[in-house]
Amino acid sequence: MTETVFANARLGSGQLCDITVSAGRIQAMTPHDGHVKMRPDTITDLSGRLVLPGFTEGHVHLDTSFYGGPWISHKPCTAGFDVHERVTFQHDNMAVAEPMEVRARKQLELCIANGTTSLRSHVMVDGSVGLRSLETILRVRETFRDLIDVQLVAFPQSGILKSAGTPGLLDEALHMGADLIGGLDPGSFDRDVDGHLDVVFGLAQTHGAAIDIHLHDGGSLGIFTLEEICSRTVSLGMQGHVAVSHAYALGDVGPDEARRAGERLARSGVSIMTNAPGAVNFPPVALLRAEGVTVFGGSDNIRDSWWPYGDGDMLGRAMMIGYRSGFYTDAELEMAFDVVTSAGARALNLDGYGLAVGCRADFVVLDAAHVAEAVVSHPRDRCVYKSGRLVARNGRLC
Amino acid sequence: MTETVFANARLGSGQLCDITVSAGRIQAMTPHDGHVKMRPDTITDLSGRLVLPGFTEGHVHLDTSFYGGPWISHKPCTAGFDVHERVTFQHDNMAVAEPMEVRARKQLELCIANGTTSLRSHVMVDGSVGLRSLETILRVRETFRDLIDVQLVAFPQSGILKSAGTPGLLDEALHMGADLIGGLDPGSFDRDVDGHLDVVFGLAQTHGAAIDIHLHDGGSLGIFTLEEICSRTVSLGMQGHVAVSHAYALGDVGPDEARRAGERLARSGVSIMTNAPGAVNFPPVALLRAEGVTVFGGSDNIRDSWWPYGDGDMLGRAMMIGYRSGFYTDAELEMAFDVVTSAGARALNLDGYGLAVGCRADFVVLDAAHVAEAVVSHPRDRCVYKSGRLVARNGRLC
Repeated sequence: MTETVFANARLGSGQLCDITVSAGRIQAMTPHDGHVKMRPDTITDLSGRLVLPGFTEGHVHLDTSFYGGPWISHKPCTAGFDVHERVTFQHDNMAVAEPMEVRARKQLELCIANGTTSLRSHVMVDGSVGLRSLETILRVRETFRDLIDVQLVAFPQSGILKSAGTPGLLDEALHMGADLIGGLDPGSFDRDVDGHLDVVFGLAQTHGAAIDIHLHDGGSLGIFTLEEICSRTVSLGMQGHVAVSHAYALGDVGPDEARRAGERLARSGVSIMTNAPGAVNFPPVALLRAEGVTVFGGSDNIRDSWWPYGDGDMLGRAMMIGYRSGFYTDAELEMAFDVVTSAGARALNLDGYGLAVGCRADFVVLDAAHVAEAVVSHPRDRCVYKSGRLVARNGRLC
Repeated sequence: MTETVFANARLGSGQLCDITVSAGRIQAMTPHDGHVKMRPDTITDLSGRLVLPGFTEGHVHLDTSFYGGPWISHKPCTAGFDVHERVTFQHDNMAVAEPMEVRARKQLELCIANGTTSLRSHVMVDGSVGLRSLETILRVRETFRDLIDVQLVAFPQSGILKSAGTPGLLDEALHMGADLIGGLDPGSFDRDVDGHLDVVFGLAQTHGAAIDIHLHDGGSLGIFTLEEICSRTVSLGMQGHVAVSHAYALGDVGPDEARRAGERLARSGVSIMTNAPGAVNFPPVALLRAEGVTVFGGSDNIRDSWWPYGDGDMLGRAMMIGYRSGFYTDAELEMAFDVVTSAGARALNLDGYGLAVGCRADFVVLDAAHVAEAVVSHPRDRCVYKSGRLVARNGRLC
């Protein structure tokens, strides 16, 4: 079996070590004392550069980004930010944008080049696109299987109860290969929290699938919905297999109420995804983690109908999470990093994640003294290894 | 006189043109029709890349950054964020960091490489450092005079009334070559709004110097202080020569009160600097601009005793200003760009700023279709021209 030693690798602790990889896994990690004892087939000298575990992208939309294609100007909101209006705008844009397969490939290439080795994408399933988007993204995923692990969420972008035939389409999506069942604002969008969650949790049970629900609803409606999700998660024994994306409500309420909600989420094994948005409240990351909640990170939209921002860089996202959370100390910056790496791996139930013997050899090499510096500087020059193989260097796939 | 034509330059409007430069100024801008009519000494083909005016960095601290040197971990705050505590921490750090001259040079190099061609820096003047920091930064400024225009603010980091001898030191600083007189939280720090402003405006009058006051004080105390600053500005006829940095209070109050304050600021010719901080309220940029206020941008601290963030990239800062302000449309992204370019030039009273005939040939060339895309992508590969001369390319000084 071919054996590669990545010599002179700086770990987050600052320690220099040699990492032996074979069959795509880390076989040994030994202190670097200037020479490699074994006789591996290949030695890659990392010259003391920092080695980080591959980044975990917890939330993108591979089907709807325009990244890499012609610029599409954002449409002003008529009155506040209306999800229905955005869905219509997105529908119009899909007709003029490059083909979905081209766009999805460009987004995956962007994410990989930035160091993401595992990714969760929502894919729209509704009465208008049916299962066509999912078919496309499943095909694209297959062609990228050696470069990145992709989980797909069957995402009812137009609601479940409001969009005729959607429950059946979601069921079919899970048969076809979607890994998770999604949801969207059971209160404000479908106007029926119970009815919406009945379908989501029912399909999850039928298919043994995990759940990841978009919840933009703020304030007390959002908190109420989170409580309902927690309650169902526990009663169905789905702890550790349910995530809520955005959950802005946790940032709307005061710290005491957020702490109570956090305690409930932790006890229920429901994780929370945030991208640290710029202009709305978002979950208090440190407070929730202190309660034991798995808070994971995602880019969310990357240059699409919902906003023009996003660069697919989860190390930059860690910076943004820290910046928005007022994280200043090394320990806080390391917390932001954990959100886009290990916490993401827990939320996504990744197998063999981490920089440790037995884990998959997915890692990123870059210039920084330690994790804290990597977060604030997030240098763009990186080498990305998937299963021990160099897949991207300095922003380009190999 | 040597004449250079920068051919095939894409302007923010999308139009392609040829820019003729001599004696450091733009002499002509003509539509690019595939061939250059004149016979210039040099032709630089910009190949349709986007040309932007040089960026305006409205607020840094050249004396206190650690950027480019060994990492210094941030110290946790004991109880909230206390300015006195931070000043002590900074004092301790200055003893172990690299020499100030080395650090200031690295920060200027960083700013220039990112495309900044004009910059305002505050420099600490107080009883402990006296005028030594200013002497150092004046020396550094002199060695960079062909690369970047630097304005220096004599900044009473330890207060004016609380720090014995500071009024005399500030007076001496203005004699030595500081361009502006600074201030710091007249209410919460010096506990005497009138007494503090008496010294600041008095010295400004004596020296014919402009003013740039740090105002972190939030809520009604901050608004009260802004009103006092406006009142003195008008009564002394200093409209257009007074700036307030941070002014978090404008983000603390509701939109009606912010609008009233904005109307007063506009009428008084007092400009507002923001860096769009991540975890505190900050001035509502679009609302204030609608009232006619000059809102300009700055990095503020770049990796120092106040926070670990900052990269000296004003195009990235425009992205952050847009991200934090909820700017999504092209017009909004262009507004964020204006904050770090033309609005900054107005606030800094720069002579001959802009991409127009007669202006100084300070510009940045990069890959983007237009201003909106440049803001969201803020690509790091850039060519920076100062007075028509290439001074930095792809992150490094030439």
